[in-house]
Order: sequence, then structure tokens, then C-alpha cells
Amino acid sequence: MTEAEQRVRDSFSGQRVMATIGASLARVLPGEVDIALPYRGDLTQQHGFLHAGIVATIADSACGYAAFSLMPAGVGVLSIEYKINLLAPARGERFVARGRVVRAGRTVTVCQADVYAEIEGKEQLIATQLASIMTIRDRPEVVG
Amino acid sequence: MTEAEQRVRDSFSGQRVMATIGASLARVLPGEVDIALPYRGDLTQQHGFLHAGIVATIADSACGYAAFSLMPAGVGVLSIEYKINLLAPARGERFVARGRVVRAGRTVTVCQADVYAEIEGKEQLIATQLASIMTIRDRPEVVG
Amino acid sequence: MTEAEQRVRDSFSGQRVMATIGASLARVLPGEVDIALPYRGDLTQQHGFLHAGIVATIADSACGYAAFSLMPAGVGVLSIEYKINLLAPARGERFVARGRVVRAGRTVTVCQADVYAEIEGKEQLIATQLASIMTIRDRPEVVG
Amino acid sequence: MTEAEQRVRDSFSGQRVMATIGASLARVLPGEVDIALPYRGDLTQQHGFLHAGIVATIADSACGYAAFSLMPAGVGVLSIEYKINLLAPARGERFVARGRVVRAGRTVTVCQADVYAEIEGKEQLIATQLASIMTIRDRPEVVG
Repeated sequence: MTEAEQRVRDSFSGQRVMATIGASLARVLPGEVDIALPYRGDLTQQHGFLHAGIVATIADSACGYAAFSLMPAGVGVLSIEYKINLLAPARGERFVARGRVVRAGRTVTVCQADVYAEIEGKEQLIATQLASIMTIRDRPEVVG
Repeated sequence: MTEAEQRVRDSFSGQRVMATIGASLARVLPGEVDIALPYRGDLTQQHGFLHAGIVATIADSACGYAAFSLMPAGVGVLSIEYKINLLAPARGERFVARGRVVRAGRTVTVCQADVYAEIEGKEQLIATQLASIMTIRDRPEVVG
Repeated sequence: MTEAEQRVRDSFSGQRVMATIGASLARVLPGEVDIALPYRGDLTQQHGFLHAGIVATIADSACGYAAFSLMPAGVGVLSIEYKINLLAPARGERFVARGRVVRAGRTVTVCQADVYAEIEGKEQLIATQLASIMTIRDRPEVVG
Repeated sequence: MTEAEQRVRDSFSGQRVMATIGASLARVLPGEVDIALPYRGDLTQQHGFLHAGIVATIADSACGYAAFSLMPAGVGVLSIEYKINLLAPARGERFVARGRVVRAGRTVTVCQADVYAEIEGKEQLIATQLASIMTIRDRPEVVG
């Protein structure tokens, strides 16, 4: 495991909301981080689909850690803002938010996350999120 | 209680994620809905602040129900997309997302939610969210 | 030329702002439309870069026409909203906004446009735009 | 005229696109800047409404200069990103983008602009834009 992957995994394990909703780090590469979330009935809106805010929760961390994975040690990241388009109802057995860096900047890194639902062995794109992530040089390890 | 408020409350009680995170309907007026969420350590990112996705979760429902509160019976709403700006770390004892309708359209209603943190008796604006909500005429009661 | 491409070209020629700024349709495929704009000093902000609003102007039409290219005759499209991330200063000899459909829906089509600057024969990604486009069945040929 | 207003006016006069489309600074206060644009047929989409990109152009500069008006001398601003919701067709005799600072931060200032159309003496809200503006300390006077 690279030093950057170790830092991503250490930081992720400190995001208590991830354990609360049952999300886990599925893949960590330089500039690309996937977060997986099995379906749970207690995370839904009134029709049994995953709530849009929970979809955004895993997409936000996938974007934040994709940016974080390219940072040197001792530097943190912070979400300035994001926009999510909800493309289809969030139904399925499992969801994966695939975050990637679109452009790494000195102060702002732009990331995008596509969120897929796994339904009967097939993947369906259910959301896409575009985010601006700020580099924090003097307050290390801030994410989210 | 108006018939519209009753429909908002009935639909909200079916959003199981709200019970899971401990959120409640604080105020329901025509075109304005507030959702409150007490701080909980198990909803945080690694610095103990509320995760940005949880902030967006209550803002998204506040926007959706603000739109829904203006709809006639038998009509549902669905979030097309939203954008959130995170203005300050989400620290505090309690959070309130105040959703309001900016413009009610035939097919698309635009809403905005401001999210405030209550810290030692004072309110601080920590996020603002701008959302597009679609009216669903043939699939009633769809929200979120 | 397909009937859909003809409709895109006819509608585009009616967007008078495109002639005003010097933009042209560079490519029209089903679900993919490129709009090109040569650099002009009178479209700039105070440092001589293309103004962000002009970048968004060609990206918005590229998204709208990408959606429009998939519609049947007699149906129009309308931009509900878009978000643009500005990734690098808009300097170069020529700019191309490449719009594509991310998901075609019955009422809402989500599109993304990447905007590239051509600088000394090389392309640089300078912006990305994510847009929600509404299908208009009873008011045909509405775009933008 | 305050020193800050003078800096806003000087910078605005260097945005050549503003003269090209006929936009002018209508009001400059600390944290609030209005930009006005009379209707012109050569800035329209194919139904004679102002193109959404031109609406965003004046909203983007109104946001940028609202942020800039609060900065000390020698500091510039740059749009990181913005999102615009189009609320009604941009028809009317004159348009005004009213930009204001929502939160001024050390590195990122969040601004919102509401765009109004003047139709037969009445104002109608036609768009709202939410923007993230970055402070540039080492490259002064960068806007837009």
C-alpha cells in the first residue's frame, strides 16, 4: 500500500458517518477513489429508494478522497461546494460512488463522482456529482 | 393543521432516513419547510463536524417538502438536482435547514435552503443549497 | 444530413447571439454537439481572457443542442439550470464546447459540456458544465 | 466615491465584453454590485429571449465585483464556479443582475446574483446564480 493510500484509509476510518451508514472504501488509486454502500432500508425516502442526500454523502467523500490521494502528506482538503444530478431512482442491492480528479489545482481541485446502482448484477448510472475541493495547507487532514 | 401540512407530515414520516439520523420537521408553512437535526457524533467526518452529505440530506428534504407543500393532493415531487455551498464547518448543538420556494413552476419548482448551526444559543449560516424539484403528476407522493 | 441534424442547424442559425460572438456549429451527431468560437478581444474580461459568461454561452448551447438532437420533430428543449467549473484561464486562439447527453429522460435530459482552448495547436480543458434540459412538448423548438 | 468603488469601476471598464454587449455598472456598494443590460435583439436565442449565457455573463460579473468590493487593494478575485437556475424566459426591455456577498471567506467568497427583467415598468425575477469566488493575493485585479 502506498503512503497516500494509507493516508486516505486512515482519514476515511475517522469519518464516523461512513460506519453509521455502512459505507466502505472499495478502491483507492492516485486521483480515483470508489466508495461502496450496500442498500439499507433505514437510509431511504418514502418509496424505499436511497435518499438523495445519502447518495451525495458517498459521492462527496469519493470526490474529497480522490483529491486527497494526490496531496502531499501534511495537507488536507475541504469541500467548497458540489452539485449533484439525480439521473434515476436509487434502487438496487449496492451503490458505488466512483470519484476522480478532473483537474488538480494549487488551491482548488475539481472532482467528479459517478454513482452506480447494482441491480441484479448490472450497473446503472443513477447520479453524477461535480465538486470543488480546496487544499488546506495550514490545517492538515481536514476532509468533508 | 391544513391538508397540505398533513400531507407533508405523512410523507416525511415515511422517509426512514430521517428517523435514522434523528431529523424532524420543525416548521411547515405554504412554501416553507424547516427540518431540524440535533448534533450526533456518529454523523461526522473525521474532525467531528457534521458530514457535508448529512447537511445536504436535511437541506434536500427541506427543499422537496417546501415545493410539495404548494402542490395539490395527488401530485408528487422529485429532486432533479441540487448544488450546495458549504460556508462554515458544521459544528454546533443543533442544525436547522430552512427550505423555501424561490419560484413555483408548472413542471419545475426552484427552491433554496439555508442551513444554520446553533452554537451556544446563536445561529450561524453554514450552508446554502439551490435545488430544482420536478412535479410528478402521474406518480403521486414521490419525494427525494 | 439527417433530419435531426437539419433541425439543430436550423435552430442554431436562429440564435442571433451566436452570430454576434462569432460561434459556429462544428459537429452535430446524435447526442453530441460541438460549438466553436475563435478568440476575440471584445469578448474578454480585463486580462484578455474570454469572459466566463461567454464560455458558458457556448457550453449552454452545446448542451441544449446535444439534447435537442435526440428529440423527435415538433419537440423543443429549455435549459432549467447549469453549473460550470472554470478550470483554467480561457486563453487561446479558438475554443470548442463539446456537449453530450449523459442521460436522456422523458422530461429532463442531463448533459455535460467540456470546453477546450486551442493554444499553439494543443487542446487544454478550461471548463466543464453540467446542465439539466427540459423537454417541451407543447411549445416546440424552444432552446436556451 | 470610495476607493473600493473606484477599483470596481476601473476593473469593470477593462472587461471589454461588457461594452460589447452594452452592460453597465448600475450600483456599487460594499458587498453589493448591480449590472444593467438593455435588451438587444443580437444577444438572443431563437425565440427572441436573451440567451441564458448572456444572463449568466452579467450575473457572473455582478458576483465577482460584489466579492471584489470587499477586498483590500492589491487583491484580485477569480470565479471558481457558478450555478444558475433559469426561472422564466429572459424577455423585457432591460435586465439587472443584483450580486451580493453571502459569505466572505479568507480564500473563498460565496456570492449570489438575482437577475430581474423589467417588463412594462415591472420587475420579474428570471434567474438566480450561486457562485464561488476565489481571492487571489499574488495576482491582483484578476476578475472573472
